[in-house]
Amino acid sequence: MPPIDPFQAANEQARALAHKLMEMATHTALAVLQPNIAAPSVTRIAIARDDLGIPVSLISQLATHTAALEANPTCALLVGEPGDKGDPLTHPRLTLHCTARFLKRGSPEHDTLRTRYLSLRPKAKLYVDFPDFRFVRFEVSDGLLNGGFGQAFLLSPSDLI
Amino acid sequence: MPPIDPFQAANEQARALAHKLMEMATHTALAVLQPNIAAPSVTRIAIARDDLGIPVSLISQLATHTAALEANPTCALLVGEPGDKGDPLTHPRLTLHCTARFLKRGSPEHDTLRTRYLSLRPKAKLYVDFPDFRFVRFEVSDGLLNGGFGQAFLLSPSDLI
Repeated sequence: MPPIDPFQAANEQARALAHKLMEMATHTALAVLQPNIAAPSVTRIAIARDDLGIPVSLISQLATHTAALEANPTCALLVGEPGDKGDPLTHPRLTLHCTARFLKRGSPEHDTLRTRYLSLRPKAKLYVDFPDFRFVRFEVSDGLLNGGFGQAFLLSPSDLI
Repeated sequence: MPPIDPFQAANEQARALAHKLMEMATHTALAVLQPNIAAPSVTRIAIARDDLGIPVSLISQLATHTAALEANPTCALLVGEPGDKGDPLTHPRLTLHCTARFLKRGSPEHDTLRTRYLSLRPKAKLYVDFPDFRFVRFEVSDGLLNGGFGQAFLLSPSDLI
């Protein structure tokens, strides 16, 4: 069967749904490349948005995804959880292809993000200053929105901010 | 900071939790390698277990993950959904590193799996015989169980079947 491009160009409704999914998300699946082998891995991380609307997380040096992102920052996020009810595949979800950028502790952007993150995720104050935790920003190259049957959209970074 | 291996060897409790997560799962995040570029992607798929306990899915040729798995069957699954309540990162989850094997329609193993899958996921009868849908089996090479703080285990295929 020849490949078929099932993605439509973004429209206002698709952009609004993508923003809603990102705004509501408290966690996502994070796909990374495993270091030294050509294989992906996937884990769960906390997520929030910075003041520009860019996805950010606070991750531990002890996690396998952190070593993977240090070796290769190319990654992907799956945003939009189906919850407990209904057919999970009818719930909208958003794939974001990203490059991860770690923030240097003590830098102005770190301190700005720390303040914002704690206002959104107050429980993170328990570990935000642990030496093995770092903030990471996910710079999005494109997004694939699956809003249900026949509702697949390709989104650009400007659609998502 | 030097790398630290946070994973313990599997024990009976870890094996039981991994099996419970797999048994309860109706969907997972699937991480794949994007064709022709060294970058991962991640999407949501339906999931079930075959009669050997191996994860299986029924996926569409129209989905980006299907083309990716045809180009490179190395992939990963994130099993175990946090649901709507509580801190999502305290809920246990299981990363499975896998190789995807498509089943040939009309083969004995396809027909056996079709019967089992429909008994587990009866709504799939709406599309199981659509020509663009195929069964795929995820042969697991290892599993990483995160059961909460200090509860990370490395599991072998025999721990998971």
